[in-house]
Amino acid sequence: MIPATGSQFPNIKNVPRYVFGSGSRHSLGAMVDARRAASGKPAAVFLIDEFFSADGDLPKALGVKDGDAVRYVDVAEEPTTEAVDALLEDLRAAGITEPAAIVGVGGGTTLDTAKAVANLFTNPGRAENYQGWDLVKNPGVYKIGVPTISGTGAESSRTCVMTNHRTGLKLGMNSDYTIYDQLILDPDLSSTVSRNQYFYTGMDAYIHCVESLAGRYRNPIGDAFSGTVLNLCREVFFGDDMMSQSGREHLMVASYLGGCALATSFVGLVHPLSAGLSVVLGLHHGVANCITLNALPEFYPEAHAEFRKFIDKQGVSIPERVCADLPEEKLVEMFEAATLHEKPLTNALGPEFRQTLTRERVVGIYRRM
Amino acid sequence: MIPATGSQFPNIKNVPRYVFGSGSRHSLGAMVDARRAASGKPAAVFLIDEFFSADGDLPKALGVKDGDAVRYVDVAEEPTTEAVDALLEDLRAAGITEPAAIVGVGGGTTLDTAKAVANLFTNPGRAENYQGWDLVKNPGVYKIGVPTISGTGAESSRTCVMTNHRTGLKLGMNSDYTIYDQLILDPDLSSTVSRNQYFYTGMDAYIHCVESLAGRYRNPIGDAFSGTVLNLCREVFFGDDMMSQSGREHLMVASYLGGCALATSFVGLVHPLSAGLSVVLGLHHGVANCITLNALPEFYPEAHAEFRKFIDKQGVSIPERVCADLPEEKLVEMFEAATLHEKPLTNALGPEFRQTLTRERVVGIYRRM
Repeated sequence: MIPATGSQFPNIKNVPRYVFGSGSRHSLGAMVDARRAASGKPAAVFLIDEFFSADGDLPKALGVKDGDAVRYVDVAEEPTTEAVDALLEDLRAAGITEPAAIVGVGGGTTLDTAKAVANLFTNPGRAENYQGWDLVKNPGVYKIGVPTISGTGAESSRTCVMTNHRTGLKLGMNSDYTIYDQLILDPDLSSTVSRNQYFYTGMDAYIHCVESLAGRYRNPIGDAFSGTVLNLCREVFFGDDMMSQSGREHLMVASYLGGCALATSFVGLVHPLSAGLSVVLGLHHGVANCITLNALPEFYPEAHAEFRKFIDKQGVSIPERVCADLPEEKLVEMFEAATLHEKPLTNALGPEFRQTLTRERVVGIYRRM
Repeated sequence: MIPATGSQFPNIKNVPRYVFGSGSRHSLGAMVDARRAASGKPAAVFLIDEFFSADGDLPKALGVKDGDAVRYVDVAEEPTTEAVDALLEDLRAAGITEPAAIVGVGGGTTLDTAKAVANLFTNPGRAENYQGWDLVKNPGVYKIGVPTISGTGAESSRTCVMTNHRTGLKLGMNSDYTIYDQLILDPDLSSTVSRNQYFYTGMDAYIHCVESLAGRYRNPIGDAFSGTVLNLCREVFFGDDMMSQSGREHLMVASYLGGCALATSFVGLVHPLSAGLSVVLGLHHGVANCITLNALPEFYPEAHAEFRKFIDKQGVSIPERVCADLPEEKLVEMFEAATLHEKPLTNALGPEFRQTLTRERVVGIYRRM
């Protein structure tokens, strides 16, 4: 009900509620039931990362009841506007028109898909109509986020990133209505992730905060969140085992606070260039960010050096030569997809960012990836 | 609508929205007007620290309109249950029965008074009926907090501390309904505070976090907030001028995040002993905390040493010998008021805290203050 107060003083919306701790996932069923009772609507929607589809006991453990819709989200590709539209259509065809709650259980792809679907249940049209800033007009369906991997900040951010293959745009529904109503932050859920994926995704939180702190839209509260996240990431990635119980706890906190940091600021150069890789090559966000940071020592020298130390310490590997043999036209396509992202590039380099990021220079950077 | 999930995994409620920045106080009028429009109720209540009562232009600048109630809160004494009840009665007698919003502009006393009054407009009975945990049954009136001094965390905490002279209890309405709906965090507002008061109040944030980190109910997310707050306090209190623009910004962030830390944990020894000083001698919270920490090197040696360095660096002074000449019975009264606080003392020392905090030992500690 409170309007945003203009760009000078954005009225930052927090995730209203969160539960944190090993085992806290068992709170979910009661929360969904409370929403069924409060809304008078019996059916809930559970969108679960397909990684968990083999676990036949999981739906019951999560509180799924007869009449609920359970869909396993294909995470081979990150969210597309087309896939979000198709999922909504599928749910409506199954008779789910006004769910009591939408529950997202998974990584960034699943969490973002749940956010987009929740908005589209209550706003007319297609996903691509809402790619941008503050285009969502009605509150979405009540949604509960349960991350199973840490780093993206999808659990606390006001966006849900989707690739639109028609327009070549990788952009989310940036809206206060996109923010989860409730989070369950249970570090046990990230124990079965592969080491490389865990690292790539965790680095997303680190990179967000490096970009925020190097940007032109800094502010003391965003800086405090970002500094905390970087320290947590250092603790995790310089630790003997980044996936220990303590490592997974700290990375889950870093991911949540990274989303809080982003709410008050913008990303910088890494995310737009990474989006170019994702749009053209279909690379996932976490690994695309790591490939990009790996090629940007000239822009982020300290973060690049620390990132290389993390890699050595944890014995993970970053794909190399992913662009080396691509034809020039593909690299130009990436340049174009990257430079669509004016807000973060302005944050990084100022409004004249195109003077620095010439086509030739960006193509050269991609060539080195 | 979502129930708390039991003490093992408390369902932490965040302040839903905040605006941060120098000049952001000018957002207030539009926010109150939006609440008037949304609620269909024309009148708002502005509770303002009496420190600002000489500024005749302030009410208009804050967005006060004809028909609103403006009350300057006497901060000579910290909130009492009696004063809160009297203020509510006064507002009702002035015809304010269902305000569109309650705005608190001031330090911890004013912010806590606004929280208590907002709850009592919609919950029957007297303030003392709600001293405790989760006793408030109905959502309070929508409330906006505008801190003018930093440290207490009243802006983001779920309590509003009140002294009950009838029972000797200094305890708040600990409730999710006590949390502000909207904050305006404008560091310009703390520029006119006296240096000693600025320090005493700022140390409240530091002490909260020292107590949380030394306690038995630690958790990774509370620890992350607490660590951030301690670093911000070090930046401010080891800085050349703790009241520079940057110092006031950072301390305002520390105060907000200190409240977030407390939401996931408990205070320790300082706050209960400090409450004894406040109940018996009427000392204000910030200075009473500093006097207490000053007498507790045996329990918090590192924090005590750092606190002494802050004092030297900033050239502030802590009252001494406030208890030295008191009769024994007054010190016993303080011991009794302090040891009512079982939750924080259990956090600090475990359920057998009375074995450590014998009457003789506590009286001895008070004697040294």
